[in-house]
Amino acid sequence: MNNNWCVIMAGGIGSRFWPYSRNSCPKQFLDFFGTGRSLLQMTIDRILPLVPMEHILIATNASYRSLIREQLPEISDSQILCEPVRRNTAPCIAYAVAHIRALTDDANILVASSDALILDVEEFRSMIGRGLLFVEKNDALLTIGMRPTRPETGYGYIQFEKGEDSLRKVKTFTEKPNRELAEVFMQSGEFLWNAGIFLWNMQSIWRCFEKYLPDVLMPFVKIRKDLGTPEEQRAVDRIFPTLPSISIDYGIMEKADNVYVLAADFGWSDLGTWGALHGLSERDENNNATLHCNADYYDAHGNIVALESGKLAVVQGIDDCIIAESDGVLLVCRKQDEQEIRHFVDDAEEKYNGKYN
Amino acid sequence: MNNNWCVIMAGGIGSRFWPYSRNSCPKQFLDFFGTGRSLLQMTIDRILPLVPMEHILIATNASYRSLIREQLPEISDSQILCEPVRRNTAPCIAYAVAHIRALTDDANILVASSDALILDVEEFRSMIGRGLLFVEKNDALLTIGMRPTRPETGYGYIQFEKGEDSLRKVKTFTEKPNRELAEVFMQSGEFLWNAGIFLWNMQSIWRCFEKYLPDVLMPFVKIRKDLGTPEEQRAVDRIFPTLPSISIDYGIMEKADNVYVLAADFGWSDLGTWGALHGLSERDENNNATLHCNADYYDAHGNIVALESGKLAVVQGIDDCIIAESDGVLLVCRKQDEQEIRHFVDDAEEKYNGKYN
Repeated sequence: MNNNWCVIMAGGIGSRFWPYSRNSCPKQFLDFFGTGRSLLQMTIDRILPLVPMEHILIATNASYRSLIREQLPEISDSQILCEPVRRNTAPCIAYAVAHIRALTDDANILVASSDALILDVEEFRSMIGRGLLFVEKNDALLTIGMRPTRPETGYGYIQFEKGEDSLRKVKTFTEKPNRELAEVFMQSGEFLWNAGIFLWNMQSIWRCFEKYLPDVLMPFVKIRKDLGTPEEQRAVDRIFPTLPSISIDYGIMEKADNVYVLAADFGWSDLGTWGALHGLSERDENNNATLHCNADYYDAHGNIVALESGKLAVVQGIDDCIIAESDGVLLVCRKQDEQEIRHFVDDAEEKYNGKYN
Repeated sequence: MNNNWCVIMAGGIGSRFWPYSRNSCPKQFLDFFGTGRSLLQMTIDRILPLVPMEHILIATNASYRSLIREQLPEISDSQILCEPVRRNTAPCIAYAVAHIRALTDDANILVASSDALILDVEEFRSMIGRGLLFVEKNDALLTIGMRPTRPETGYGYIQFEKGEDSLRKVKTFTEKPNRELAEVFMQSGEFLWNAGIFLWNMQSIWRCFEKYLPDVLMPFVKIRKDLGTPEEQRAVDRIFPTLPSISIDYGIMEKADNVYVLAADFGWSDLGTWGALHGLSERDENNNATLHCNADYYDAHGNIVALESGKLAVVQGIDDCIIAESDGVLLVCRKQDEQEIRHFVDDAEEKYNGKYN
């Protein structure tokens, strides 16, 4: 067995995909494309040749433990790391790293989200394999950067230093740019999309947590004797609510000086929005995408329609809308306003006491 | 027991209300307003003080017999007149009249549809009571005309002769007018909406069938010995497909010279379209009407939303649309194009082998 480990972050609630993604079953647990495998299951399938099953950890919210047991029966209970409350990515990763350290000092760790879409799995494996070899031999924090195919304003960007190799030092991380800036980024050839995939060895990430986020790491050091024992959950439940909510990007990646990026091209999408899903789905000649259901369109263009399997949608005279129904909730919303969906969810939660969340 | 009879026409398929109204359960069988009573049941409730239960006949399509038994357990099987095929209103009424004549020569007959909405039930009963008295004493075909409240282009109009009384002779029947003409009709004060409610005595209507529609009446005369016996259905099934498809308006009312109209004002709607239903429903400050379900609107105006009870619709950025879902079919359609719904139903029937009809 090799010393590669993988941490899959699977605690998100995916509210931007409401009502399809729900509190009770967020998008990572859904079979988005009707392939028979959920996004989480596809994520595991992708990394299995690189990382032994026993070295895969699923970091999630406590409420999703049973869903994960159901979808991943081959994963043992101790491989599911449950956060009692949501605290963004840095505390999540600190917990996973501390958990691994309680088992071994020698680990190359891949961190990835559970809800991304990756089209070219062979290329993904080849790139991750190269990355794991690199971090095994180097004191480096490695990210995967996707060569941009469009001036996307929904992603963060990574600027890398000039050079020939596809693996180079990172110059800057950039937040989601406006359209104009995104065009400049894309034309410059110096920017990559930040895919939120990280690789590092135990020593490198541990030192960075000690240096940049001691408040996040130290509570785990203090409960070290409980990690890997039946006491782990109780100890984590105690310290986790006290941790600051902070992202790994902001807390470490943007501050460390040994950050590298591997430019890749494996057809990645964070599947963050209905609009992104529309762009990735098969569409008819009028640019309508239909997921799961039957749909007939009349004088309708640029819509994405997702009803439950077996249902029929008839859509007439409507352009550029999201029409999504799941489990008693129907959303009809302009694609351009999909950032509002979060507010609809909040409003509905308050108005109907969480009945539709 | 009085000699008033009532024929309720309940054979329509209501395809303009698809997907809410379906082949398997057309609109007359639906509880449109969530009151606990279907339109058919409300129709019976309305006429019961005027007509004995035993004198009520339901004329329908053979496929709805069991639905009617279910909704009207107080009606005996022999009161359900089943047409094996659809042939418009004249053959339907000829059948009912012949059926009654086999039981009695002395009858005042009210003919009404099963799927209209009537808001002022007391006024309805008062008017129908007056009408029944009138046709008992006069050789007249009496219709009920509604005083128009708007220049509706979806209804036929009745022009009546000048006079003081609200019961007058009819001058002309007019098909659905265009907008301009409808405005003129309304302003003239001489036109009423044709509500498709008829009253006559047995002798009057029989003579008219003999004179204007002998092709429709004679086959029933020939099977007279079977009517009111266990052989009735078999005999009707044999002759019905041979009858011409023709409306009572075109076949008799527009031709006879003893046609009268009683002008009434009891809040009638034929509930023919989603648009009409929108106009009759309670609406929020943005003119959105919600039926059965919960609905939240954001920057949305003039919509009618009808999902199954208990569901939630969130509608954003959409104006003047029909959003209706029932039993696995969702329709999103501009209100102004609702006459297209028939075509959607036809297309879906062909494409999905009737699965969604």
